[in-house]
Amino acid sequence: MIPPTHPRYQSLLIRERLVNCVNRGITSYHGLIAHGRGEAFDYLLGEVSHPFALEAEKAAVCLLILADHPIISVNGNCAALVSEDIAKLSNLLDIPLEVNLFHRTDARVEKIENHLKNSGAGRIYARGDAILEDLDHDRRVVDSRGIYRADVVFVPLEDGDRCEVLKIHGKKVITVDLNPLSRTARAADITIVDNIVRAIPNMIKMVNELKTADKSELDGVLARYDNRRVLSYALETINENLNRISRELLE
Amino acid sequence: MIPPTHPRYQSLLIRERLVNCVNRGITSYHGLIAHGRGEAFDYLLGEVSHPFALEAEKAAVCLLILADHPIISVNGNCAALVSEDIAKLSNLLDIPLEVNLFHRTDARVEKIENHLKNSGAGRIYARGDAILEDLDHDRRVVDSRGIYRADVVFVPLEDGDRCEVLKIHGKKVITVDLNPLSRTARAADITIVDNIVRAIPNMIKMVNELKTADKSELDGVLARYDNRRVLSYALETINENLNRISRELLE
Repeated sequence: MIPPTHPRYQSLLIRERLVNCVNRGITSYHGLIAHGRGEAFDYLLGEVSHPFALEAEKAAVCLLILADHPIISVNGNCAALVSEDIAKLSNLLDIPLEVNLFHRTDARVEKIENHLKNSGAGRIYARGDAILEDLDHDRRVVDSRGIYRADVVFVPLEDGDRCEVLKIHGKKVITVDLNPLSRTARAADITIVDNIVRAIPNMIKMVNELKTADKSELDGVLARYDNRRVLSYALETINENLNRISRELLE
Repeated sequence: MIPPTHPRYQSLLIRERLVNCVNRGITSYHGLIAHGRGEAFDYLLGEVSHPFALEAEKAAVCLLILADHPIISVNGNCAALVSEDIAKLSNLLDIPLEVNLFHRTDARVEKIENHLKNSGAGRIYARGDAILEDLDHDRRVVDSRGIYRADVVFVPLEDGDRCEVLKIHGKKVITVDLNPLSRTARAADITIVDNIVRAIPNMIKMVNELKTADKSELDGVLARYDNRRVLSYALETINENLNRISRELLE
């Protein structure tokens, strides 16, 4: 039991949730390491949703609403951390979820699928009946109804080179990545530099506000959106936090 | 198999080593998350041993040589990442290793002890026959010949509050922590802000140079050492790296 007075209470609770999902076969060992990397950047960001994150989340919602064939890609960490919220977002936007794993086994896909169903998800694609060329690892195995034919792919918690490959295939990519310097963060069209446990609930609220908006309003949000500027704000914020703590340390 | 051309080859190899040690019961799930946090900071530091790290490593070696009852505390990640080097350092300095775990079970202690023995370690304490008051978790269980009576404790890869408690007990503490802002980093007498896979080999070289030095020379190194300055250099380095990458990003 973690005492609620612990200075890192929230962060420790999330960690327990992940460890629990490793035991259930949902999260991989590599997912735990990736989570640790994210934790470090979240800590440097002050563990809040900054304006640059909210701006990216809003643009992401607009792009998902406007898309012809959008898909939400779910990996083990996403399922472990925000299964109920991602199911809710999927249902609200009427966009299916696709289980897409770096370390894919049929057993793991099924476990994640069941976990998402139990969390309220309506449509889940997990067929693995198509191959996305140029991609290494098991993630190249995709669903023909989902990532394969999608024009917009929302891939929270992506790592490595997939974002770049999705771009080569002409898709628009939205990601959630706490490291504004990562290859994924730089390659995506919209990079949400925020903790996924805050980002998805933020987006759910925004869907409720935006889903009745005119197309011209959504187009306007996207026209004004500049991902490079968002990334540089995120870097500036980390820098300012470091400078502040550095000053306190030296006093 | 990871291709050697992968931009993160070294980092991925280390990750594989850890995952392998989870399967063998040496590293814990929480150890994987902690490793991820370290990875993020190492990345921000440029993955090299900076002068401030070398300075801390040298001071650490001097303090260990001068100590009356020094001990090297080994946890799961340390055993997974640098078992041979930590065994070599222990033998060279004639300082025993003590297995001290946040998530302690007899089986895990035994596995780590055997792993260290197989890596060449001479003296390993793992009795758990004494209690260090004020410490939570299983780490309070220590060896009466080791941490319990030690005047200098080298605890690489520490997390949480143990460093502060060791200080309360009047011990000098040396740690390896890639996050210069952590509570451990701030509480320790000597904080080595470096990746343990670089830090321990660096220290081994330094032992060979310093073990024949006069006591006055070692005292001099320690008298000139300022941990707060070392931490602020580490923070400055992270800041400079972020600024540089930020500029490249915006060009």
